[in-house]
Amino acid sequence: MTDDTTRSETEVLIMEATYAALRRHGYADLSVAQIADEFKKSKSLLYYHYDSKDDLIAAFLSFAADQFMADIEAVTAAEEPVATVRTLVDHLLTVESREMRDGQRMIIELRGQAVSEPRFRERFTRVDDRLRERIRSALAAGVERGVFDAEIDPEDTAGMLYAALTGAMVQQHTADGDPTEAVRRMIHRRLDRLVVD
Amino acid sequence: MTDDTTRSETEVLIMEATYAALRRHGYADLSVAQIADEFKKSKSLLYYHYDSKDDLIAAFLSFAADQFMADIEAVTAAEEPVATVRTLVDHLLTVESREMRDGQRMIIELRGQAVSEPRFRERFTRVDDRLRERIRSALAAGVERGVFDAEIDPEDTAGMLYAALTGAMVQQHTADGDPTEAVRRMIHRRLDRLVVD
Repeated sequence: MTDDTTRSETEVLIMEATYAALRRHGYADLSVAQIADEFKKSKSLLYYHYDSKDDLIAAFLSFAADQFMADIEAVTAAEEPVATVRTLVDHLLTVESREMRDGQRMIIELRGQAVSEPRFRERFTRVDDRLRERIRSALAAGVERGVFDAEIDPEDTAGMLYAALTGAMVQQHTADGDPTEAVRRMIHRRLDRLVVD
Repeated sequence: MTDDTTRSETEVLIMEATYAALRRHGYADLSVAQIADEFKKSKSLLYYHYDSKDDLIAAFLSFAADQFMADIEAVTAAEEPVATVRTLVDHLLTVESREMRDGQRMIIELRGQAVSEPRFRERFTRVDDRLRERIRSALAAGVERGVFDAEIDPEDTAGMLYAALTGAMVQQHTADGDPTEAVRRMIHRRLDRLVVD
């Protein structure tokens, strides 16, 4: 499957089947047959498009990333630089439903597999780059318009904020001491101070 | 195996075999037989002590955590609060050898599995709590001695710093855009500003 955003109905249904199977079985125990079980059309179509479980998962990661980035663009589209960063932080740290929680857990499990699967790594690289750039460009626009302290380094600050957001999400789903609210408070307080009165 | 730090020679050899097997095969493809292959004593001893692969891995996570925390205590033992935080940051973000790199990758892959394996989650909770507390207590001691700005909230600040360190490590080993140096620079700069002249 290509990574552009025009996907056939069949491709979308295969991605939905992959999501449902991942949610039900997790990555480690997942088989292509289990994904095929969730697929509503002829199973031969699925086997025709994809060679292996990791092939399906890599395509799923691209699919999920495109949906996630479209979400991010939609919620931050009309916003000023400061509001963009705040909205992004809240969007990444909020788990409003069982489905969002399951989705984040799935992504974190797959991220762990990216240490050894180059195709997963490639997908996470792309998402990281896009999110970091979204934060960096908002910070840079804020400096340019005089709303953010000119002393900040937009690139390093974006790297730090995005690392904290990633770490908070990972810790939230893999350990008991959830740091989400502490990180949220710290970033908003930091932004308060960066805004020039 | 108990989680206290007195371990028999056999237990230590089993943990070393688990480490070697994890390094060679990764988690997803690992079998107890492959761990037994790395074990220098009678394989029945290994099967006597542990019931399953995840049983061995959970014990290994406790073993690795104890070694890691002993390392942290050793490098920060004689240091003042500010130096303790700086040393911790550098210690967590530095990958000096192939072995350290493989060790960190292993831990990140296992952390991904902690979304669904409660025993792994329990081990990561303990490590997170200990590291966050190490940072919090250094910050609190610094405030008490008047070297850190009294305005900081040691608990939230520790949560933020530790989330950024975790996120940087995860991103470093699962994607191409390594944010380690940006995070290191940002934290050291932040500490420069928190230190009262």
